[in-house]
Amino acid sequence: MEEKMKLKDYLKSIELPDEKVAFKALARFREMAIPIGSLGRLENMITKICGITGNLNPNLDKKAIVIMCADNGVVAQGVSSCPKDVTKQVSINFTRGITTVNSLAKHAGADLHVIDLGIDAEIDAPGIVNKKIRRGTHDISLGAAMTREEAELAIMVGIEAVGELKERGYGILGTGEMGIGNTTTSSAVVAAITKGDMDTLVGRGSGLTTEAFNLKKKIVRRALEVNSPDPRDGIDVLAKVGGFDIAGLAGVFIGGAVHRVPIVIDGFISGAAALAATLIEPKVREYMLPSHGSAEPGTEVILRALNMTPYLNLGMRLGEGTGTAIAFHLFDAAMATYRGVGTFDEANFEKYVPLD
Amino acid sequence: MEEKMKLKDYLKSIELPDEKVAFKALARFREMAIPIGSLGRLENMITKICGITGNLNPNLDKKAIVIMCADNGVVAQGVSSCPKDVTKQVSINFTRGITTVNSLAKHAGADLHVIDLGIDAEIDAPGIVNKKIRRGTHDISLGAAMTREEAELAIMVGIEAVGELKERGYGILGTGEMGIGNTTTSSAVVAAITKGDMDTLVGRGSGLTTEAFNLKKKIVRRALEVNSPDPRDGIDVLAKVGGFDIAGLAGVFIGGAVHRVPIVIDGFISGAAALAATLIEPKVREYMLPSHGSAEPGTEVILRALNMTPYLNLGMRLGEGTGTAIAFHLFDAAMATYRGVGTFDEANFEKYVPLD
Repeated sequence: MEEKMKLKDYLKSIELPDEKVAFKALARFREMAIPIGSLGRLENMITKICGITGNLNPNLDKKAIVIMCADNGVVAQGVSSCPKDVTKQVSINFTRGITTVNSLAKHAGADLHVIDLGIDAEIDAPGIVNKKIRRGTHDISLGAAMTREEAELAIMVGIEAVGELKERGYGILGTGEMGIGNTTTSSAVVAAITKGDMDTLVGRGSGLTTEAFNLKKKIVRRALEVNSPDPRDGIDVLAKVGGFDIAGLAGVFIGGAVHRVPIVIDGFISGAAALAATLIEPKVREYMLPSHGSAEPGTEVILRALNMTPYLNLGMRLGEGTGTAIAFHLFDAAMATYRGVGTFDEANFEKYVPLD
Repeated sequence: MEEKMKLKDYLKSIELPDEKVAFKALARFREMAIPIGSLGRLENMITKICGITGNLNPNLDKKAIVIMCADNGVVAQGVSSCPKDVTKQVSINFTRGITTVNSLAKHAGADLHVIDLGIDAEIDAPGIVNKKIRRGTHDISLGAAMTREEAELAIMVGIEAVGELKERGYGILGTGEMGIGNTTTSSAVVAAITKGDMDTLVGRGSGLTTEAFNLKKKIVRRALEVNSPDPRDGIDVLAKVGGFDIAGLAGVFIGGAVHRVPIVIDGFISGAAALAATLIEPKVREYMLPSHGSAEPGTEVILRALNMTPYLNLGMRLGEGTGTAIAFHLFDAAMATYRGVGTFDEANFEKYVPLD
């Protein structure tokens, strides 16, 4: 049980972001020749990132999206419009540069860090990091997806990926995933934690007929009945009704807090992982940044539970980390103002009169 | 009255975007190995831009933000927390590279195109295009801001700026402004057109005490009473309660439709100009793209009237074109998917089952 111990140690090591550094960053904005607060959330992004990193001059130049790939046993129930093989094929396609997240990450100057946590196939692609726990989870409508030990193993892979990427100079990380069936498992995770209504938590994923959509709701309900996950125990929820991909991403969020690296939430699946991570350790929330509000309906429930408002409203529902890739531009833009905007002295005019 | 004739001719020349080209662009997205519609509004951006330009491969590499600068006579009433001189100083600062829009435009690879339509000072800065109509408008709380001929002149400057920039290779344009007092004139323009409530149309601009804020509402109300702008006549509204900056930006939006160039709406002032432009010629709307939802409350009223939803939710209220600069990243990201994402054939898997 060496991993179990280590996870406990990691969780114990987590502290809140450095408020003093965040305040110093805010003071810099107050010297700029602009109306107070007029940069809105661009200010918040930078003060938060400065607090997270403990650095008044954080370097976000090197960015990556950590993509967790795994198969889900529940696909056997017919909850997805895609055949299971698509998990393997798209994971390989990430290394061939032809997926959507490839295009968007390239445009944002970000690298992909693709991890196989449980694809149900032998993978022979040099660009994919092999951390396979097992070839796919068990069917959550029949029993637990994985053991508690396996969930902790997946979380540890996420934590350690963040540590490794930080050592390699990455200053900000996005989260992505590939796993056919993972909107089903995400719905189950979010339902277990929020006790929310199935109609707001289950969506059509990549595209389902009405019949299959109704089946999907039934399957999520059954998964909760069969497994009775403990809503106060994030690891239990992930193990019983989650997936290797979601558990791995929960680990990435926890890793952000452990290693003081800002982690960007993507859409529904990444959000489910973020929610589970905050249940495991609430301080982890302070190391997360939102990105977009996805078209998958449960995303709104997650962001409300996290008390976060997305920056982007693009109606996307593609996963892969595509929303985080676009959000990288926003953090860079915020950094450009932080570094570039002139002070009142430079601007040749007096400070604006403050609000009463 | 040569300008008047020319404006009429320009307006008559406007046609709707090319639906056939837009449809062909959509068909390209349908070949991509992604769930149908999963790119959400990134798809809409590109199909719209293809339709606007009539080009299936539009080139957005060269971008600019057209910044209209002018003073407003109504500032004498005490409606702004900034002294009037700030208009001149910030306009000059645009050419010195130290403003917020400089930082954001540079980061987005966009140029600034700064036009003096009515700064109340002699300007000697080589980076500012001199199209000065007059040194500031009249005080709208006492009478018309300008004559109808002056409003048409300002509109023509905007239309012709778009034509000139298109000739110089710019593929997409943002809109920005600098003019102390222009949230007051914008509130008056939007109120005249939408008959909306003062409380939703007047904000605190760059920062006002509660006393000055209440005065601002009173001044806007008085401007409408004194001038009785015709709510069906956009030019009349701009002339009576607008400003040279707003009229010039209305011209930029009209110019987008005339010259088939997509024009990005910024915040409240740019939005007021967009609304006035659609009143002058409704087809102009189809050449506009939204960017962000600003913190100035009237922006929401404008976007609802235009039936548009912002892409970005950043709580900014800085003007200058800062929101358009950030939105440029989104259009580029959408273009990256349009050009980069592989087809089903390339991806080695079958088309997803479509929705019922």
